[in-house]
Amino acid sequence: MTNPLRIGLAGLGTVGGGVVALLDANAELIARRAGRGIVVSAVSARDRNRGRGVDLSRFAWVDDATELAGRDDVDVVVELIGGSDGPALTLARATLGRAKALVTANKAMLAHHGLELGDLAEANGAALKYEAAVAGGIPVIKGLREGAAANGITRVYGILNGTCNYILTRMEAEGLSFGAVLADAQAQGYAEADPSFDIDGIDAAHKLSILSGLAFASRIDFAGVAAEGVRAVDSADIDHAATLGYRIKLVGLASAADGKLFQRVHPCLVPLAHPLAHVEGALNAVVVEGDFAGRLFFSGPGAGAGPTASAVVADLIDIARGPAQPAFGMPVAALTQFETADQASHAGRFYLRLTVADRPGVLAALTAHLRDSGVSIESLIQRGHGGSGGVFVVMVTHHVVERQVRAALDRMTASDDLLAPPMMMHILDF
Amino acid sequence: MTNPLRIGLAGLGTVGGGVVALLDANAELIARRAGRGIVVSAVSARDRNRGRGVDLSRFAWVDDATELAGRDDVDVVVELIGGSDGPALTLARATLGRAKALVTANKAMLAHHGLELGDLAEANGAALKYEAAVAGGIPVIKGLREGAAANGITRVYGILNGTCNYILTRMEAEGLSFGAVLADAQAQGYAEADPSFDIDGIDAAHKLSILSGLAFASRIDFAGVAAEGVRAVDSADIDHAATLGYRIKLVGLASAADGKLFQRVHPCLVPLAHPLAHVEGALNAVVVEGDFAGRLFFSGPGAGAGPTASAVVADLIDIARGPAQPAFGMPVAALTQFETADQASHAGRFYLRLTVADRPGVLAALTAHLRDSGVSIESLIQRGHGGSGGVFVVMVTHHVVERQVRAALDRMTASDDLLAPPMMMHILDF
Repeated sequence: MTNPLRIGLAGLGTVGGGVVALLDANAELIARRAGRGIVVSAVSARDRNRGRGVDLSRFAWVDDATELAGRDDVDVVVELIGGSDGPALTLARATLGRAKALVTANKAMLAHHGLELGDLAEANGAALKYEAAVAGGIPVIKGLREGAAANGITRVYGILNGTCNYILTRMEAEGLSFGAVLADAQAQGYAEADPSFDIDGIDAAHKLSILSGLAFASRIDFAGVAAEGVRAVDSADIDHAATLGYRIKLVGLASAADGKLFQRVHPCLVPLAHPLAHVEGALNAVVVEGDFAGRLFFSGPGAGAGPTASAVVADLIDIARGPAQPAFGMPVAALTQFETADQASHAGRFYLRLTVADRPGVLAALTAHLRDSGVSIESLIQRGHGGSGGVFVVMVTHHVVERQVRAALDRMTASDDLLAPPMMMHILDF
Repeated sequence: MTNPLRIGLAGLGTVGGGVVALLDANAELIARRAGRGIVVSAVSARDRNRGRGVDLSRFAWVDDATELAGRDDVDVVVELIGGSDGPALTLARATLGRAKALVTANKAMLAHHGLELGDLAEANGAALKYEAAVAGGIPVIKGLREGAAANGITRVYGILNGTCNYILTRMEAEGLSFGAVLADAQAQGYAEADPSFDIDGIDAAHKLSILSGLAFASRIDFAGVAAEGVRAVDSADIDHAATLGYRIKLVGLASAADGKLFQRVHPCLVPLAHPLAHVEGALNAVVVEGDFAGRLFFSGPGAGAGPTASAVVADLIDIARGPAQPAFGMPVAALTQFETADQASHAGRFYLRLTVADRPGVLAALTAHLRDSGVSIESLIQRGHGGSGGVFVVMVTHHVVERQVRAALDRMTASDDLLAPPMMMHILDF
């Protein structure tokens, strides 16, 4: 058997500990599958003395992670530090600059600097791999880059943030408010103390920008993602959606047409007949629509030590098996640069939740605003208490361009008919 | 750009036509992704004059497919002839024997001769690839061989035959009998004139043997698959299952423990909360349970020209991108040889449908047989007409070893309590 592949591991949090545990537990199987052993040579983390439940005394320790890139006993650096810039980026540049392979779970770094790193990897003939950056152990990067490579991709979308899906699932199952579930999730460690990356859709947007680059053979364009999180979802929305036959999910969605790339993260109504509606709790799922393969659906645990370590080590096995392939499915120079699509030109059906005063004439005024903006209504529910002393009016529009819906909502907001800002969500109609 | 990868295509049915159409439609994208063009040089099929809707005059024609292997203008042979032996196997041997890559969609050939072909591929340093052999365009071969490679796999199972799933879905949706749906499916071309490969579970067994070899790093063992099809599923079973909260699906399931490999294709009751229950019509789905990744779920169209061509061309792109990897994830010599597990030692809950005479004492007799075999009953429904002048008694057992259930059914069959053979199905409890 060939020499083992030797790893320098930067970052020993949950995922780093999971990688060490996996390489220990499945060492023999991995050596059979990779054709050679995969062993850790050296590690680095912020705090050497923190208890981690795995024996690190076998490995060399370096205080400065960047040193891993220069060590003679390291063939591949695994970067699990996190953060789009700072030490993670310094280490990534140093590793690829020395023509060593880099495996990373860092979606923020890839979303912001992926193309620079891809260029550097190509220039040095080094592998840059990142299966763990999107959807945990689900092999969706490989699925797009290789499995669906024969297809023109028409659309890629999915549930990319487990924290948001966990919150929405519990809001539905237990009838709780967003704030109550978030507080409980934080107390139990399922959500970060500062949850804004998750619940404002930034984490999902990082992942979506990576998926859409692979899907459309395009330059990663994180700045072009319109991101809206789940803070505005009220438990009344979940009830109304259920009445109408939908579940509310935070969906990241990308499509490309006419030289324009449409990328959006937003809570939307998913029909119960769609497989995404049945993705519950902390699971993730990705749908890839190919012009020949049809609709491919991947789901599984999207985070956590085991699933993420599974993806990291899958990348290591790929590296052990053979020579480097382009990180984004083709050389960076061959990727397309799309324009960003105008979000408001997107057409579809929309869910509207309006908080209105309970007085005569309000419905007539609202529906007049919609009519004047060319928006027609498919169904309307008025029921329950709307808070702020008003009632909720919930509507589903017919197929219409988003710009018209926004115009109608602007008219309503300018009038005194609404007691609270309106809530608008897309309906997933495919 | 490097020289194009040149294909010899054997078999010009639905899938062969789809491959030509895909290579035409996405030629530019494929060349970007593969780093070189992929072009057809020569083709072969039984009937040169059959209309196929694609222009074949650009390609060289050979009457004997085996000649494709020897042509100087062919780098890779795509075998779409079908059949476990005969011309497909002759061509496969000739291709790999000349150190040329082989891409095949032929599950029957792989189930019977995969290891021989894998050995031949290794000996000659040639690629043997077969993504299209299982689950159409869903990249599940790649998902197992590479995506989940870091995991000890505890179980792999799924819906592997679209024809059976289509029949079961229509039986449920329209309340039709098995025979009625089958006849209609045959009339519409969804089922073969001789449907036994599909409906007796042989096709699913071929696919399962390939999946389980990859999952457990074991020698493909088609002979070790216990296969039972869907002929015995009555529409009353579908009704009763629905009452109990289940859908009936033809599931192929494999697990390995204690040096024994358990492989079975059988109709079973899938709880509505399980994602397999929502796989409808001609879709396929595969679940891979990894010790670190958790439960990974893949679904999509499992057959047809587009999806199958997508998988064939994904293999071609892999070959164009880089050197050959072992066909079964590691050299054939490194694969484990398991013993075949005893099917009757499998434990779980069971669904029983008994057709009994409508007279006093029958239930007492039946339940006594169950008691004497150590089988206890979780729930029991007696309702409706059982045909053969009797009534149906439907039971769900508690968790029990299959041998005991079979013993109880043998006792019942030996008595005169049953008016028709009993129906037993497993309940998918994970």
